[in-house]
Amino acid sequence: MSLAAARGVYVIAPTPFDDDGRIDDESIDRMTDFFRAAGATGITVLGQMGEAPKLDAAEALAIASRVIRRAGVPVVVGVTAPGFAAMRALAREAMDAGAAGVMIAPPNTLRTDDQIAGYYRQAVEAIGTDVPFVIQDYPLTFSVVMTPAVIRRIVQENASCVMLKHEDWPGLDKISALRGFERDGSMRRISILTGNGGLFLDFEMERGADGAMTGYCFPDMLADVVRLSAAGSRDAAHDLFDAHLPLIRYEQQQGVGLAVRKYVLMKRGVIACEAQRRPGAKLAPAARAEVDYLLSRLARSDPRAAGLT
Amino acid sequence: MSLAAARGVYVIAPTPFDDDGRIDDESIDRMTDFFRAAGATGITVLGQMGEAPKLDAAEALAIASRVIRRAGVPVVVGVTAPGFAAMRALAREAMDAGAAGVMIAPPNTLRTDDQIAGYYRQAVEAIGTDVPFVIQDYPLTFSVVMTPAVIRRIVQENASCVMLKHEDWPGLDKISALRGFERDGSMRRISILTGNGGLFLDFEMERGADGAMTGYCFPDMLADVVRLSAAGSRDAAHDLFDAHLPLIRYEQQQGVGLAVRKYVLMKRGVIACEAQRRPGAKLAPAARAEVDYLLSRLARSDPRAAGLT
Amino acid sequence: MSLAAARGVYVIAPTPFDDDGRIDDESIDRMTDFFRAAGATGITVLGQMGEAPKLDAAEALAIASRVIRRAGVPVVVGVTAPGFAAMRALAREAMDAGAAGVMIAPPNTLRTDDQIAGYYRQAVEAIGTDVPFVIQDYPLTFSVVMTPAVIRRIVQENASCVMLKHEDWPGLDKISALRGFERDGSMRRISILTGNGGLFLDFEMERGADGAMTGYCFPDMLADVVRLSAAGSRDAAHDLFDAHLPLIRYEQQQGVGLAVRKYVLMKRGVIACEAQRRPGAKLAPAARAEVDYLLSRLARSDPRAAGLT
Amino acid sequence: MSLAAARGVYVIAPTPFDDDGRIDDESIDRMTDFFRAAGATGITVLGQMGEAPKLDAAEALAIASRVIRRAGVPVVVGVTAPGFAAMRALAREAMDAGAAGVMIAPPNTLRTDDQIAGYYRQAVEAIGTDVPFVIQDYPLTFSVVMTPAVIRRIVQENASCVMLKHEDWPGLDKISALRGFERDGSMRRISILTGNGGLFLDFEMERGADGAMTGYCFPDMLADVVRLSAAGSRDAAHDLFDAHLPLIRYEQQQGVGLAVRKYVLMKRGVIACEAQRRPGAKLAPAARAEVDYLLSRLARSDPRAAGLT
Repeated sequence: MSLAAARGVYVIAPTPFDDDGRIDDESIDRMTDFFRAAGATGITVLGQMGEAPKLDAAEALAIASRVIRRAGVPVVVGVTAPGFAAMRALAREAMDAGAAGVMIAPPNTLRTDDQIAGYYRQAVEAIGTDVPFVIQDYPLTFSVVMTPAVIRRIVQENASCVMLKHEDWPGLDKISALRGFERDGSMRRISILTGNGGLFLDFEMERGADGAMTGYCFPDMLADVVRLSAAGSRDAAHDLFDAHLPLIRYEQQQGVGLAVRKYVLMKRGVIACEAQRRPGAKLAPAARAEVDYLLSRLARSDPRAAGLT
Repeated sequence: MSLAAARGVYVIAPTPFDDDGRIDDESIDRMTDFFRAAGATGITVLGQMGEAPKLDAAEALAIASRVIRRAGVPVVVGVTAPGFAAMRALAREAMDAGAAGVMIAPPNTLRTDDQIAGYYRQAVEAIGTDVPFVIQDYPLTFSVVMTPAVIRRIVQENASCVMLKHEDWPGLDKISALRGFERDGSMRRISILTGNGGLFLDFEMERGADGAMTGYCFPDMLADVVRLSAAGSRDAAHDLFDAHLPLIRYEQQQGVGLAVRKYVLMKRGVIACEAQRRPGAKLAPAARAEVDYLLSRLARSDPRAAGLT
Repeated sequence: MSLAAARGVYVIAPTPFDDDGRIDDESIDRMTDFFRAAGATGITVLGQMGEAPKLDAAEALAIASRVIRRAGVPVVVGVTAPGFAAMRALAREAMDAGAAGVMIAPPNTLRTDDQIAGYYRQAVEAIGTDVPFVIQDYPLTFSVVMTPAVIRRIVQENASCVMLKHEDWPGLDKISALRGFERDGSMRRISILTGNGGLFLDFEMERGADGAMTGYCFPDMLADVVRLSAAGSRDAAHDLFDAHLPLIRYEQQQGVGLAVRKYVLMKRGVIACEAQRRPGAKLAPAARAEVDYLLSRLARSDPRAAGLT
Repeated sequence: MSLAAARGVYVIAPTPFDDDGRIDDESIDRMTDFFRAAGATGITVLGQMGEAPKLDAAEALAIASRVIRRAGVPVVVGVTAPGFAAMRALAREAMDAGAAGVMIAPPNTLRTDDQIAGYYRQAVEAIGTDVPFVIQDYPLTFSVVMTPAVIRRIVQENASCVMLKHEDWPGLDKISALRGFERDGSMRRISILTGNGGLFLDFEMERGADGAMTGYCFPDMLADVVRLSAAGSRDAAHDLFDAHLPLIRYEQQQGVGLAVRKYVLMKRGVIACEAQRRPGAKLAPAARAEVDYLLSRLARSDPRAAGLT
């Protein structure tokens, strides 16, 4: 199956470390199994939330390969890099290891439409036109603003572009605009999976997204919302989503978000240790207590949150 | 009462226009009364969400004066300007008209700690040391990052600094840090009112905020949450807050947020017309329907949202 | 004559103040006469280097009017403002006072091509389609990057666009590209005057610029270089230019440039006082001595620099 | 000798490629010899102008090793990377290969003083306290603004900090401020070598710089200016510098600068081919002719520029 037809939830995987910063393979395996059981239709590794810049090249490839071998679902590998040599190397190795495609975010120095489109053409030339790739559109972090027309241009100029990781903000109208391009025939169909920690997933599905690509600590909930929404159970989708929204919102904070995510995944027994490799954010005791409180409130309606505190 | 002791909710007031872009005085009056009845302990005019840059100098002063005369609560006037001459002029006129203080955001060219502290010293010199002022700390929009230590420095260097409009993101630990400075005696006490559309108000109160300064379309809810939280009714505060969170989150989107806010205030009968003066964002039909849906869901638990759709 | 046919040197005028920050009308008059005698074919007031943000609205208009009445050459008035209300007010008043046109720089929050083109459409709507305007393209200061195609779009979408103040960097190929658009019929002709303190004026003329719009402290030299270059005296133009280049380069430093410019203009007897209105940069003694040294070296080949130290 | 006592010219080396993007070892050797003969007291490889991001890890190390083996002068290796794992790997390998130290630029997301100082502490922790390092302070490209006090803090907090590559702009007063810190005992002495293509080298030397670290296509001239200035031959230093300034200024343009540099080095017989590895800027024919014209003018006073066109 091509990634262009991907649906459901591609979980953004964190990288489990132990307290000394060593990669924890056992937790990687358990996490991979957990994502699959949680209803993930794909997994994305080596993204920003995977602490990719703290890994050396050998480590990065080893993690990607390990997840690919075990996952049983398509794996997208983040290959964003400051130069095309490193991007190409990781992209080719990841594809050789069985990746379904790669994800590329633009460098934060790009400004004009031409610069952005040009960058993706050069990236495709570097990694090869045979490597399916995902555009990561995340202005809040990358400071690069892509209009729907620029995304269409990238899609039309590069046959290997198969998916948009959508995390513009606000972004609902952008989904509508892109689906409009598809309807009017000016853009071929791609998969649109949304990010931003899931903060707008309820309405993103209704605007035409195919699912989510994000790493919220309850991916099983994301999978449920996508399923309910796709099935037309609007109120049920929103009810479930709203119950999680206080925690989604809390986890979506820049900078501390990953610490919250790892803390909850540890509590859920998915990873052994919440530590980030240095330099990494630590959760203040007050924040930890706030997350516990949110979990206890969530447990009133979602049993998956029960017994975690 | 000094603003340094302010508590509760200072509502950020939008500016009501008619469809032709004319200022709607009748709506200003009705809105002022509504905020008061909603439990506002103060009102802030001419902020970013007040479309201040679209007003000429005479209009700006007229709006501020009108609200000040009618409000019966302290009014803070936004005087952020690209130059100190315009800032001084508006600040002096606003104070003459009875304002309780002014609010100043830093220009987005500032980078270093010294530049930021220096800017506030110069601003104070320009407006006069007798004018109480509020620091607006909003990196998401202004791209200026102030550490707690820089805020302390501004407070300590300028006796007329009385309040922080806190909307850093993430910002919970910043509140804790500032209150810690007060406890250890390194900073005198100021009022901390939080923004970001209220998205973290539940926990901000628990970290030591004195209330909110934001313009969410249900300021009455903000006032309730502040009151419940101050009274120690933690669960009740969160229950009410969580019921509104889906809409808070929706309204907090950059760019379309003001359109949502005006749309709901119009539905609530507060302002006559949702129009923004040009150039302004318009709510797409799909977005309008989404807000309606959120209101209908909210009405299940909060009667104030009933009958609006 | 329309500004679209403007050639020669439009001097960017500083605003003369006395040591207490009061506007010095006598110096304004003397400066205006000096620019005219120096060969200026136009004057630009209220630009960045005119300390426009430090002027209140009445002062700004008074300065513009004073220069317009006296100049005897077309005067362009900078009307860049954070909002369209203030921009409109100043633009209309300046045109009523006899300005030849206005200059508009984009706000530094713009990113995409559509945002930039949209901004100029809105600005034209605000100031009126009858007001000739100049695009200021200065990415180094404004962080807005306009491709040649975006400039063409602004020109073609707005009949009142008559001139480009070109100070992109590097920018030589941009001049060639725009003149190419004119030749291939895709863009109507506009005047291109170059900025950047004159740092590339030698080659900018050869690429097709119509002259300079900048405020180097020897505008008489700029006028000579433009004349020599237009007359085809390439070596002579470069010889004169190169003699000034050490000082041009020194004056072109961001932040201290205006202090250098005012210092030399004071030495040349053009303005009475080098002071900037607060907050302003002051020239360190070491910098002052360096400028003196550069002037003494310049005096060896250009008598206009003699006797200044 | 410690790098903290370095003086003279550390030439920023470009990476020679052939037309197909292959690294040209023969040109690397010839270039290394040329720099030595030109009076270089050191060489810096893998900087921005060395197209480092286009090299894979093995290529980068091979180039650094090759230059180190041949140079006979200290070699500084650029190790700036998006993550500390890659930075550490290259730094350790480079030191093992005989490098004298490494150079680190800050990521362009840093804003506050604490963030900048914290970043360098973390970098030192990553590469090891035994690796001498150079701070690269280049706000024009990296958007990170370091005050003199922040640089002092980095120097004082990290004993392995030995040098500042100074290319702030304007930056003369910064050199004076740092040397002032040394005089007042608040900062230990470090070497200050200046960049910016040499555009202010004449006065930087007089303010207290120890020399230049830049890659202007006539490093022999840079060495002469440093020598003349150190010897107190002020006028002679400026005379030589001024003769080159038109070309220095031309080469210092962002984006096309490297193309100019490689073009001239090719003409001088230093490298075999001017090509950049893709994606790279190409010199337009008009620009090529302009450089030729500048060389022919330069040849009138500096025989090293004769016969190049």
